[in-house]
Order: sequence, then structure tokens, then C-alpha cells
Amino acid sequence: MEIKRVGFSILLFLCIVMLTTIPNIHASAQTKKPMVRMAKIVIDPNQLEAYKAALKKGIETAVRVEPGVLTLFAVYEKDHPTHVTVLEVYADEAAYQAHLQTPHFKKYKDTTKDMVKSLELIDVAPIGLETKAKS
Amino acid sequence: MEIKRVGFSILLFLCIVMLTTIPNIHASAQTKKPMVRMAKIVIDPNQLEAYKAALKKGIETAVRVEPGVLTLFAVYEKDHPTHVTVLEVYADEAAYQAHLQTPHFKKYKDTTKDMVKSLELIDVAPIGLETKAKS
Repeated sequence: MEIKRVGFSILLFLCIVMLTTIPNIHASAQTKKPMVRMAKIVIDPNQLEAYKAALKKGIETAVRVEPGVLTLFAVYEKDHPTHVTVLEVYADEAAYQAHLQTPHFKKYKDTTKDMVKSLELIDVAPIGLETKAKS
Repeated sequence: MEIKRVGFSILLFLCIVMLTTIPNIHASAQTKKPMVRMAKIVIDPNQLEAYKAALKKGIETAVRVEPGVLTLFAVYEKDHPTHVTVLEVYADEAAYQAHLQTPHFKKYKDTTKDMVKSLELIDVAPIGLETKAKS
């Protein structure tokens, strides 16, 4: 009887371990997928230089201090300098959500709120993301 | 007279040095500017998977073997999977010209010539290009 009870306890313990870890493994696999996004932004031409300075500062700070912000590439079109594109790569969805709560991101949003004429966020998936060491 | 002649020779030498180096410094500053470009490509939906495989291979090879190809980030839009964007960063114009002559680029162009429905090349300038070590 004692052996049966020990066996039952071990089985119960294993069941509890499986039930608690399997959903976590699944959730972890989902949230650990890199998140890639393209932002297309049109800027007020009268505030373009101020906008570019604010964006540059926000980008540099985010990639430097946030472990989950992997890449932020911001460019403007030479023929349409008010048309800005930002390609953003985060380690996962959680890293992106954390980024939104940082003081530097909130400052960027606040500084630029009257400079941005339109903002389109495009969900994208990577085909290839190849880069040499930090440029 | 001898001192004057030596002085004149030194002056002449310095003039020649200046005349030959200054244009080179200028040319070097011009050609060493990073070249950044955005390619917007629309793919035949029936050949999308083959196109993505060819692009991925071309990108990986170029960044691995070409010193002047710094970054090639290719993504497709989740809502319009046939819409591909490639952000390209080359060390300078010469690195880009060299890239066009490589066997892997020529192979990519040849493989994909009937898969690409449209190609728009947009000259862009960097605002911020920040990335952590090789992703």
C-alpha cells in the first residue's frame, strides 16, 4: 500500500509539472518570435530637421539601452524628404511592449506629436535580415 | 642664390603635393559615403516562395562575402505577401557597383527575372541606422 501511495504521489507530481510547464513552453515559443515592423511617416516640412533630430536620438537610445530592441533603421526619401521609413526589429512582442513604456520612447512621441502628419504601421515578416557587426 | 633655389624647390614640391592630394581627399570623401537604398518589389503570387528563397540566398551570400555590403534587410507585408521591401546599405557607391558584378547577384537577377512584376528603387538617406551585433 505504501509503495502504491508513493507511486501515485510521483505520478500526480509529474502530471502537475507537465500541466504547468507545457503551456509555458508553448507561450514562450509564441512570444519569442522576432517582431518586425515598417513605419511609414510623413512629416510637416517646416519641422523636418527637428523631427529627424528627435527620431535619431530616440533610435540611438533605444538600441543602446533596451536588450530587446535589435534594429531601428530610419531613412528619408531623397526625392521626398518629408517621407520617412523606419524598419524596426524587436526580439519579440514583449520587447516591443516594453519599448512603448520607456521614458525615451514617450519623450520621442511627445516631442514629435505635432510634427507627424501621418503614420502608417505595416506588419511585415522577414525574408532575410543580414547585417555585419554594428555599423 | 643657392638658398633661394632650395626654398623655391621646397615650395614647388609642396605645391605639387597639395595639388595631387587635395582632389584625392575630396574624391575619397565623396565615394566613401554610405549608400542607402530602398527597393520596393512586387512578386508574381504563383512564384512567391521560389522568389523568397532566391532573395534570401542572395542576401546571405552578399553580406557574408562582400566587405562593402553592410546590411540587406528584406521583408514582406503580412497583409500583401507579394509586396517586398529591401533596405540596402553599402559602404559606398563603389561597393554597390562591385556588388552588381558578383556571380551571386547575377544569379539572383537571372533566377528572379520572370518572378518580379515591378521594381521601384528609391534613393534614401539615413536618419539613424542602429543595430546590435549581427542578428
